[in-house]
Amino acid sequence: MEELSRGRALGKVTAVIEESERSPMGTMKKIMQENPDIVNMSIGEANFDPPAELIDIACRLSADKVNRRSLYTSTRGLPPLRQAIARYMKKTLGADADPDENILVTVGGTEALHLAIKVLVRPGDKVLLPNPGWGALEGLMRRQGPEILYYPLRKAHAWTVDTDAVLQAMHAGVKVLVVNSPSNPTGAMVVDPAGWARIMEKAKELDIFVFSDEVYHVYTYEGPFVSAVGLDPTFENLLLIDSFSKAFAVMGWRIGYAVAHPWLIRQMDVYKETVSACTPSIAQWAFAEYLDSCDAYLEQRRAMLKDNMEKMVARLNAIPGVFCPKAQGGFYLLPDFSALEPSSVAMVEKLLRGGVATAPGAAFGSMGEGCLRLLFSQEWLDVDKVVSRIEKTLTG
Amino acid sequence: MEELSRGRALGKVTAVIEESERSPMGTMKKIMQENPDIVNMSIGEANFDPPAELIDIACRLSADKVNRRSLYTSTRGLPPLRQAIARYMKKTLGADADPDENILVTVGGTEALHLAIKVLVRPGDKVLLPNPGWGALEGLMRRQGPEILYYPLRKAHAWTVDTDAVLQAMHAGVKVLVVNSPSNPTGAMVVDPAGWARIMEKAKELDIFVFSDEVYHVYTYEGPFVSAVGLDPTFENLLLIDSFSKAFAVMGWRIGYAVAHPWLIRQMDVYKETVSACTPSIAQWAFAEYLDSCDAYLEQRRAMLKDNMEKMVARLNAIPGVFCPKAQGGFYLLPDFSALEPSSVAMVEKLLRGGVATAPGAAFGSMGEGCLRLLFSQEWLDVDKVVSRIEKTLTG
Repeated sequence: MEELSRGRALGKVTAVIEESERSPMGTMKKIMQENPDIVNMSIGEANFDPPAELIDIACRLSADKVNRRSLYTSTRGLPPLRQAIARYMKKTLGADADPDENILVTVGGTEALHLAIKVLVRPGDKVLLPNPGWGALEGLMRRQGPEILYYPLRKAHAWTVDTDAVLQAMHAGVKVLVVNSPSNPTGAMVVDPAGWARIMEKAKELDIFVFSDEVYHVYTYEGPFVSAVGLDPTFENLLLIDSFSKAFAVMGWRIGYAVAHPWLIRQMDVYKETVSACTPSIAQWAFAEYLDSCDAYLEQRRAMLKDNMEKMVARLNAIPGVFCPKAQGGFYLLPDFSALEPSSVAMVEKLLRGGVATAPGAAFGSMGEGCLRLLFSQEWLDVDKVVSRIEKTLTG
Repeated sequence: MEELSRGRALGKVTAVIEESERSPMGTMKKIMQENPDIVNMSIGEANFDPPAELIDIACRLSADKVNRRSLYTSTRGLPPLRQAIARYMKKTLGADADPDENILVTVGGTEALHLAIKVLVRPGDKVLLPNPGWGALEGLMRRQGPEILYYPLRKAHAWTVDTDAVLQAMHAGVKVLVVNSPSNPTGAMVVDPAGWARIMEKAKELDIFVFSDEVYHVYTYEGPFVSAVGLDPTFENLLLIDSFSKAFAVMGWRIGYAVAHPWLIRQMDVYKETVSACTPSIAQWAFAEYLDSCDAYLEQRRAMLKDNMEKMVARLNAIPGVFCPKAQGGFYLLPDFSALEPSSVAMVEKLLRGGVATAPGAAFGSMGEGCLRLLFSQEWLDVDKVVSRIEKTLTG
């Protein structure tokens, strides 16, 4: 680790963030810029074009001088966008939400999680997170000082949970349970409909707050997707997190939303005022106008993603020693390569030299060791080329 | 205050935010939407058009499919933007900063302050803020639990500070001193060049960290603007906060930056990863291309703002009992109406019925009582109409 000098006044300050917390995203991007032949399967992005109609709307609204789209919006989010989100939720999740009371528009799903954690989690609280799970979530939680407990996603069961084990982990001392389905990094719909019902029932019984991170919900490939929202229609114990970043390939626009009880939404709203003031305005105006007409776009991308995923899974499972469950949703596969190389970090380093950038399973928790997270959202994905490189590097 | 019911799980949670902390911005906007004849002098926005060239660039880049401008950028900010910011700082502040080490691109100046406070301020620390000063700053600070001390801006001295009094307040127990010049809500350049030099000298002597919020620095109307940056070129004791929101009338784009010691920038950068992931990408790409050619735009707006301000000051000072110092920079006047009505909140209510929306001086601290904050950034400002309404309402 590089030596860092500090300024004099800074000498009095303890680092709130360890250097080891840094994600390798910046380093990866740099290596890939320097080596354009490397195939990027590593960074969690939607590597397809955003809707052309959405871009057209954004340009037209940016240039609209009469309505001044560059002004602050309300911190809560534009009313027509919140109304459009309520219709989108009805259509894609089968769920009802009151645009005035239940919805907060946020700077991506990241800000929604950040605000909810700041409002709800206190030092010493117990929180229950998935292992493997999204690394930033753990970082966010850790800074609030709770005791972090984990429930496992099971590799041998296509990365789903054992509902009984989750129910057992949900004891009275737990304040927040986080569920992310479809999952980053595994691609699984981690809970089945019956399991979800039992989990929400226990959450209500013990007053546990459930954060349901469903940012990949529009891209599912088999079976019905079950949102948590229908199971707690008044949001007594539930916070839904969704984002347009991954669904519409506009990660850089920074727009998502939280759905929760009016009391929690008000608290997050006021907190947000001093964090980001408002969510980017052009993105809000553009989605307010676009969102009702997104069906064909989502259908096309879903077909492309499913095709990528199925080809990847077939080719990976054909490599002796590799076990790759299908993804039921989202952009990721988390195949098990441990029979070839037990250390996921060692694999990532080998594969980078072999021309494929991947993310080490261990970065998502102990249960991910021996696995690699592979992104399949690339519109241009050459499955043969990628899997050949992986096979050659790890078995050669 | 409206009664709020809570969900069951929420019943266990203490509100982190009091309802009384809410800014009246939302309410004001609603009243004004319902009464289009009310002149808005209340909300802190740049009410003029953004640069046409900037909008054109943003549209062209949004539609650029080859370079995928909708992807995440690095959390630190696009390298070409940080380089452009370093040139802009050299040109407008006469200051040097290393684009790789000293600059973090943020979701407006608000996020820059939020991140710095989260990294540096701990419960029990002493922080020194201006009175009157920007309300959100106090809210941000309060949530970190420091002891908040104030130094006065003096109405009788055109809202500048008594440097000796500030130096006296800077004792060894103080961790952070915040200076905002040109000031919101007063329009003053609060410290003169000699005063700044003495303050930074004492800050270095006592290892006090100075946050210099200079977001209005491109709009100044008399005398040289002195940035704090030249007084601590290695950023040992200094954090500069700047924003494009007010300078280029793109509040809704959410883009600003922090300049500080490399150690602090790294800490803020890592923290930001879990707060906003990155600053909106199109805004970053557009400013990277636009920023070098901003001179004529800024010069035109400065002339318009100065003209508005001088007309307002002349007309307000002609009302018997009103005392209105000139603004030396920024968008605001804070005239003293206390001879006509001592309560600024009562004045705001009267004036709203009289057709002018204003902000009560008391909302910015006890020193603002008896005063109103008036915005003069409106390209279409009808000074006669506004001041006639104010005069008629408060003296009639």
